[in-house]
Amino acid sequence: MEPHRHPVQIYYEDTDFSGVVYHPNYLKYFERAREHMLGVQTLVDLWDREGIGFVVYKCSLNFKKGARYGDELEIRTTARCEGPYRALFEQSVWRADHAGPLVEGTVEMVAVNKEGQLVKMPTSVLTAAQGWSQG
Amino acid sequence: MEPHRHPVQIYYEDTDFSGVVYHPNYLKYFERAREHMLGVQTLVDLWDREGIGFVVYKCSLNFKKGARYGDELEIRTTARCEGPYRALFEQSVWRADHAGPLVEGTVEMVAVNKEGQLVKMPTSVLTAAQGWSQG
Amino acid sequence: MEPHRHPVQIYYEDTDFSGVVYHPNYLKYFERAREHMLGVQTLVDLWDREGIGFVVYKCSLNFKKGARYGDELEIRTTARCEGPYRALFEQSVWRADHAGPLVEGTVEMVAVNKEGQLVKMPTSVLTAAQGWSQG
Amino acid sequence: MEPHRHPVQIYYEDTDFSGVVYHPNYLKYFERAREHMLGVQTLVDLWDREGIGFVVYKCSLNFKKGARYGDELEIRTTARCEGPYRALFEQSVWRADHAGPLVEGTVEMVAVNKEGQLVKMPTSVLTAAQGWSQG
Repeated sequence: MEPHRHPVQIYYEDTDFSGVVYHPNYLKYFERAREHMLGVQTLVDLWDREGIGFVVYKCSLNFKKGARYGDELEIRTTARCEGPYRALFEQSVWRADHAGPLVEGTVEMVAVNKEGQLVKMPTSVLTAAQGWSQG
Repeated sequence: MEPHRHPVQIYYEDTDFSGVVYHPNYLKYFERAREHMLGVQTLVDLWDREGIGFVVYKCSLNFKKGARYGDELEIRTTARCEGPYRALFEQSVWRADHAGPLVEGTVEMVAVNKEGQLVKMPTSVLTAAQGWSQG
Repeated sequence: MEPHRHPVQIYYEDTDFSGVVYHPNYLKYFERAREHMLGVQTLVDLWDREGIGFVVYKCSLNFKKGARYGDELEIRTTARCEGPYRALFEQSVWRADHAGPLVEGTVEMVAVNKEGQLVKMPTSVLTAAQGWSQG
Repeated sequence: MEPHRHPVQIYYEDTDFSGVVYHPNYLKYFERAREHMLGVQTLVDLWDREGIGFVVYKCSLNFKKGARYGDELEIRTTARCEGPYRALFEQSVWRADHAGPLVEGTVEMVAVNKEGQLVKMPTSVLTAAQGWSQG
């Protein structure tokens, strides 16, 4: 199955003085991609109407090549739900002129209510995630 | 009267690929300095117990010289309350090896409740601001 | 003349615990908009081939209404060159459901070489800016 | 052996609308801590005089509890060099009122020259890292 694809443009704000993208920023791009995959309005409604938000509880990243100012990147994401509480996202960063991924990562999430207590992953999220599942 | 002084260390995260501090970040340093001037715990209590937060409604910045990775900066702040609703902060960025300020700015703030409605500037803030007033 | 229009999506990363967009971030959106107005590839080439970058030396912002998570904003920009060295940008933030601008600002820029010395505004930038001038 | 300890104050800029610290920011705090552990001036000199910088090529994070606005955190770091090219840092986030770590992570780094080519870990870094080694 094809991954979800989300474009990211690299601006001044994304880089540091070493000339490449500051490494924590890739987690930002991964989050932007997940939000579009699940539907920004779906997530806004879950928060506003049901008080349900999402929390990353685990992630790992492998950095292979640094992106630079002006780069047009693509974030590719596949998702998998593990039981009723956890969603796992495999995410990677691509640039048209480079053979493999620039960065690869895994992000694991849970849903929580406004008191920070664990709740079941909402159906709307399960359904959206299933549309981009790997297997 | 002496200004409030707050140290800021410049890290990778603060710079961009041009080699100097990314310009919006000076507004972050100004906010950190204001929080220490007014008292972080005072501000936390105002939010948690009274639902009062602070909103910048106007600011201006003059950039004279860019700070670099590894720099130890000092934010100097004086405050002035204009009527019962508005607090005005004059803030500047200094580095030991440079004669004048690197950046100068003015930030105007109001207090709001959790619905975003204007409320009178809390007494604790007025008192703290007065301790660092210019005149 | 019509302003340049650039869309900005608001993510988790853009907000703070008060529930609205963290105020320095609007300067980021303004910069993204200016880069697209002038041409990202034009700016990359100026840096890589001629060692010319851009520096904000003055800016001011008026905040009228806070944007929120999930908002789709539009940055409107007009430009004006003042003499051979300075470019001035009038920029504002709009949201479809709100009558006036959420934020308004002015950003003044100069071009510098890699030693940080002032250089004339490049022709490519003057031309692009003229395409979005106010008068 | 005792870990290196670095204090981090949580400001507006660190949080998002969900009320806790935005998860990628912990990687920033980890980096600040590593810089102080290795010596900011040592790192500045390595870059300016020898053109040597540092790149994260792998990291992983476990989030257990979210930090909030106003929190005073402590980053604890131990280091280990694996061969002449790689440095591995075990890092965690602590808050005085909480029994265990709020966040735990591992960051692996290499040294590169200005062309981005791998170079041996500088002696000054090896020595500093050894001062905070685990074993």
